Formats: sequence, C-alpha cells, structure tokens
Amino acid sequence: MVADLFFGSDSKGKVVVMSSFIPSVERLIEKFRKLPGIGYKTAVRLAFHVLSMSEEDASEFADAIINAKKLVKTCSVCMNICEDEVCDICSSQKRDHSLICVVEGSKDVLAIEKLNDYNGLYHVLGGLLSPLNGIGPENLYLKQLLKRVSDGEVSEVIVATNPSVEGEATAMYISRLLKPFNVVTTRLAYGLPAGSELEYADELTLSRAFEGRREI
Amino acid sequence: MVADLFFGSDSKGKVVVMSSFIPSVERLIEKFRKLPGIGYKTAVRLAFHVLSMSEEDASEFADAIINAKKLVKTCSVCMNICEDEVCDICSSQKRDHSLICVVEGSKDVLAIEKLNDYNGLYHVLGGLLSPLNGIGPENLYLKQLLKRVSDGEVSEVIVATNPSVEGEATAMYISRLLKPFNVVTTRLAYGLPAGSELEYADELTLSRAFEGRREI
Repeated sequence: MVADLFFGSDSKGKVVVMSSFIPSVERLIEKFRKLPGIGYKTAVRLAFHVLSMSEEDASEFADAIINAKKLVKTCSVCMNICEDEVCDICSSQKRDHSLICVVEGSKDVLAIEKLNDYNGLYHVLGGLLSPLNGIGPENLYLKQLLKRVSDGEVSEVIVATNPSVEGEATAMYISRLLKPFNVVTTRLAYGLPAGSELEYADELTLSRAFEGRREI
Repeated sequence: MVADLFFGSDSKGKVVVMSSFIPSVERLIEKFRKLPGIGYKTAVRLAFHVLSMSEEDASEFADAIINAKKLVKTCSVCMNICEDEVCDICSSQKRDHSLICVVEGSKDVLAIEKLNDYNGLYHVLGGLLSPLNGIGPENLYLKQLLKRVSDGEVSEVIVATNPSVEGEATAMYISRLLKPFNVVTTRLAYGLPAGSELEYADELTLSRAFEGRREI
C-alpha cells in the first residue's frame, strides 16, 4: 500500500523514488498504518518518532509489544485478560462475588474499573450477538457465564453491553437465558447516549447508568 | 501517568484497581501514550489492538521498530536517513547533482519525493534556527552544506524550509551564508499557506511552490 503511494510512473524515467531506499522505515510505516485509526501521515509521523527515540526506548517499546502479547492470557473464570490463570478481580476476597457485570470486552472492564464505583465481578463475552456478521451465541462466552450463575453464589447479573442494536439483542438474549436461575438480571440505565460506545462514555454518565439500572 | 488515572483513593478500601493486575498491558499503553498525538484512550485502543493481533504480527511489529532503529543511518553527504553510507539519492546518476534542496528534516524529503517532480539532490538541516530553544547555526548541518556548495558542482540551492518564523530565519541565514559562493539561492514560492507545516501541504500547493520559487 505504501509502495503505491511512492512508486510513481517510471515512464518519466527521471525520478528515483525514495521509499525504496529505506525499506526498514517503509516497513515500520506500514505496521503503524495497520493500527486502527492511523492514516498514512500519522503513520509517517509515528515512524519518524521511533527513529528519533533512543535505542533503549525503541527496544523497550518493542519489548512492551512482545511481552503484552506473550504474558496476557484469559482469566479462566471471567474471560477478562490477565497474566495468571485466574485474574485478580476474580480471586480478590474484597470484591462482592454475588454480583457479576457482563460486558462485551476487556476495554469495558477497564472503563468501569476507572469509575472506582463498582465492587462486583465481571464476565467478558468476547463480542456481541450479530447474526449479520455470523456471530451467534456459540461464539460468545455464554456457557462460562451460565456455569458461574448455576454455581449459586451469584444473586445479580448486570448486563452492561453497549446501548446499540447488537448490545440490546445480546442483553435480551442473556436475560432470557438466565430466567430459569434464581438471579436478578439488570441492565444499565439509559443514561448512556444511544448508539455510542460504552468505553467512551464520560464517567458521570457511566456512573449514573450504574445507579439507575433496572430489572429486565 | 497511567497509574494516576487508575489508582483511586484506597481509603474507600473496597475497590481493587484493575490496571495493577495487568502490568504488561499497562506498560504497552504507556509506550503508546508517549507517541506524538496519541492520547490515553487511543493508547488503550492501540494496546488492545496489539493484544488481538496474531503472535506473528506482533513480533513483526516489534521487529520493524527494532530494525528501523538499527538499520537507519544518516547519509554522509545529504544527512538524510538511509541504510547505507551514502543514500541512493546522492549516489544516483539519474539525479541532477547541480541542484540541492535544503529541508528541515527527512519527512520533508519524503513529502517532496512523493511529488515525483523534483530531480535534484537534498540537504537535511536536522532542524531550524530557533534561538529561543537554544538551536543555533552550530546545531544544524550547515558546515556539510557549505562543503558541498564549495565543491563547485552545485549551481542552485533551493531553500525549502517551513514558511514559519524559524523557517524564514533559517532561509535568510542560509542565503547570506551562500552569498560568497557562485550559486543561485532560491526559496519556495508562497503558495504554501503561512504557518502550516511543509510535510502536510497538499501536492498541488507544494508543486506550485516549487514552480514559483524566486531568488532571495
């Protein structure tokens, strides 16, 4: 893709194109371009920033990428990311184990934890129901949720999926799934602006949504 | 910095904060945050994108950072980045060696090469004169430029620094510096919107500025 931008018609026969001279920089620009929300000019800027780093900083950056990829696993209980078999939230005795907050992904856990307001456990679905994209119930961590609920310790399940079509559908599906069990299923209140993403909600909105949750 | 966002007052004594659980992710977020123009939420998004990459892609990304840092040197002639002792532009026989375009940095070379319009050589200054920031003539690659000009092969020096205060000052300084030599010193025409950055100029504007250059 980057090559396309650089290699002009050679028919002019006069211009030797630069990017072919520095393949390592070209490769780095390409890698940055693959990140979400990073266009060509931003990728160039980031690549040149890397070149201006000290060798130590650059290798620390590279190590951070490798390590995050190597060390991060999935918690066997809540399916959130962690570095151990069971995450610290699930194994903490200070948290309320009768409360489970169901979210789409780990980024949502991060957003809720930042509130410093919620003291229960989480369950990460790993996605939302989306028949158009071929994502059905079998693609989400629903079995694991059912197992946790059927273990009996849980008294309330808060469904905190995005207030989008898929999020709503997933919430309805989960509420029906949990009907046979002796748990209250709640949904975050509509303090959240519709159509937006949970991870970008401001903290007050998210906090109010927690307060105003109601039974499905 | 990231830690500040996460570690709320422990006086509440009830919330175990998440980020401390996943130091490798926290570290990666921090690294992304240090990049120019990347805020906290974008850094989180990028870090999670890395987690969703295949192991192979992540290690290729890390390698690209390491390699760019390791392989990229400075051309001993024009001070542009390259992977050899002398860059391919300087050693190309297809380029016009009587023409030198003086720019602030390698990003500007990239922008001008993209035009596919300029066939001379370059000289990278490595910055602009900025007394307020303590950058004087001795901090720029001006000696190397004088040496190239005094070698006699050069007939025109195009000063293509940004149309900013520092860029103007640097251009004036260079034009005075080159007075004793038998070369024409030109400046890019004011097709460039004032106060903007050369590297972000659209190609037509940049092209017109090349055409309309005039003697200082």
